[in-house]
Amino acid sequence: MPNEPRANRQVYLQERPTGIPQAHHFGIRSVPVEPLQDGEFLVRNEFLSVDPAMRGWVNAAANYSAPVGIGEVMRAFAAGRVVASRHTGYPEGTAVMGMLGWQDYTITDGSAIRRVVREAGLPLSLSLGVLGLNGLTAYFALTACGRPEPGETVVVSTAAGAVGSIAGQLAAGRGCRVVGITGGAQKAALCRDEFGFDAAVDYKTTDFEQTLAQATPDGVDVYFDNTGGPITDAVVRRINRHARIVVCGTASVASWDPWPAGPRIERHLLNKAASMQGFLAWDYEARYQEALDVLAPMVREGRLRYREEILDGIEAAPGSIADLYQGKNLGKRLIRLAAD
Amino acid sequence: MPNEPRANRQVYLQERPTGIPQAHHFGIRSVPVEPLQDGEFLVRNEFLSVDPAMRGWVNAAANYSAPVGIGEVMRAFAAGRVVASRHTGYPEGTAVMGMLGWQDYTITDGSAIRRVVREAGLPLSLSLGVLGLNGLTAYFALTACGRPEPGETVVVSTAAGAVGSIAGQLAAGRGCRVVGITGGAQKAALCRDEFGFDAAVDYKTTDFEQTLAQATPDGVDVYFDNTGGPITDAVVRRINRHARIVVCGTASVASWDPWPAGPRIERHLLNKAASMQGFLAWDYEARYQEALDVLAPMVREGRLRYREEILDGIEAAPGSIADLYQGKNLGKRLIRLAAD
Repeated sequence: MPNEPRANRQVYLQERPTGIPQAHHFGIRSVPVEPLQDGEFLVRNEFLSVDPAMRGWVNAAANYSAPVGIGEVMRAFAAGRVVASRHTGYPEGTAVMGMLGWQDYTITDGSAIRRVVREAGLPLSLSLGVLGLNGLTAYFALTACGRPEPGETVVVSTAAGAVGSIAGQLAAGRGCRVVGITGGAQKAALCRDEFGFDAAVDYKTTDFEQTLAQATPDGVDVYFDNTGGPITDAVVRRINRHARIVVCGTASVASWDPWPAGPRIERHLLNKAASMQGFLAWDYEARYQEALDVLAPMVREGRLRYREEILDGIEAAPGSIADLYQGKNLGKRLIRLAAD
Repeated sequence: MPNEPRANRQVYLQERPTGIPQAHHFGIRSVPVEPLQDGEFLVRNEFLSVDPAMRGWVNAAANYSAPVGIGEVMRAFAAGRVVASRHTGYPEGTAVMGMLGWQDYTITDGSAIRRVVREAGLPLSLSLGVLGLNGLTAYFALTACGRPEPGETVVVSTAAGAVGSIAGQLAAGRGCRVVGITGGAQKAALCRDEFGFDAAVDYKTTDFEQTLAQATPDGVDVYFDNTGGPITDAVVRRINRHARIVVCGTASVASWDPWPAGPRIERHLLNKAASMQGFLAWDYEARYQEALDVLAPMVREGRLRYREEILDGIEAAPGSIADLYQGKNLGKRLIRLAAD
């Protein structure tokens, strides 16, 4: 290690948002990297992840993890390489992905690491997308919860997005009719032309419900839901008997405090003997390798397509979440940090 | 058969209700019993069933079965004995349960029969209750969908009712903490004293939510839901991670046309990785005998308690559904028909 301590730029939570986090809720500071203790190692982050779930991480309302504190480094997935180590399990040069935060450097004893990245010949950034939580969510939510059979109709919302595009391609690979719901003609074209869906429906058009009905002439058997709200209501009205609705995200609803109202679903689920299930990828952590062993060869052979939208420099991080909720991004959003 | 044709009194649908069927929606008429054709048999009904699901059978809105037509005999479960037969599979004297309708006599080729009643030493009426769809619903909704583990908290709504009381007892037998939700102090006492629940909460009191919270100090793992609506909302707010909500009925909501609004559930299901599933007993028809083999010995040995509320005479039928929705009945409601 050099004699001068390295400078570590960090994006921290400055103000708690009530809805979608905006740039002004965050600050950027530079702090020196502390010396390593025994059992610790230093990761130089190369890619920071930008995820819709980050809204939940900074909101005060009860959620599936405790909120990020004011002044704390923004919780985030990141991928990087070990550049100094006093931990025998993580020698210098190891590629890792984990909860490393929005910062240049992270010191950890390994508890922040989700996995060592071993996929040969594939970019490290994929560990935050198609071979990261996006791919794992799509894989397990679809195969373990949605369980689509050949010939069934699978509808995916945020279909052009990092999770939806993978879920749709996996369903198509199982012989299903895949219908994507997305915002705008450009994304709809992406769903059809690049991801190979049978149909794509633009929820921003006035005839959304009619187009959805035309695209799902045999109803809906599996709904891979990333939006919640009125888009979900429209799909739910078209479900078949024994339909499986898998809730992976609620991107279309700006605030859940207080709970917004919507059509009551219990009678409809009863009439259809259908289910609605909340999906958390953590529940499948013990099976991640199984999914990676399926997904990595598909990526390598071009059978599973993905998009990345890479912003350069940590300065882009604070404003990067809000855009997700405006549907501006095409593909998995990442912040690339410049090499030293 | 006598030379004079037997007179068959029938309760038929006279006017289509939009909400809960009342006495004036039905008429009673007497028609002669037709002669039997080859392959048919005549059942003398002894007990007619009165079920909350009958509301759905007469409403015009899309449902899980086509609505009863105006002028048609009211669709209903009934139990009786074969009194004349030209069908080798159903000789005279056979006890049967099926969709025999609200009438004295039913001619069928067997397609209306759900099962031959063979439980020795137990009243025929049980085939419409604890050993009928009520018991089967409780058994499969709890064991196949709710899947409670020992030590978990199971909440049951309409807990003193024909289905809820069985579900609660089955959960208690699995080592769960069982909390019943019911209307009024008398039914709450019944849940505790006769059905052996750990606690019973009266939803009609102003401190319902507080009492529910006190009765479920460790949250709710399984919710066996027969009500829907605000009662369900209160339980849902208390669910634990991986909770299973099984929707078996929606008795507390008077009309579903149009769908009433309520708190959106998708975010909460996501945060808790919980599921809400609609349950239809038909889906388990191939496994009914498995349930009867468990339930009948429990009844015989006094380990499964039940209540019947028997009304005498077919004249009681038309008004008997509405009462169910006012929570007036204690136990499975039946109409007993006088012997000839």
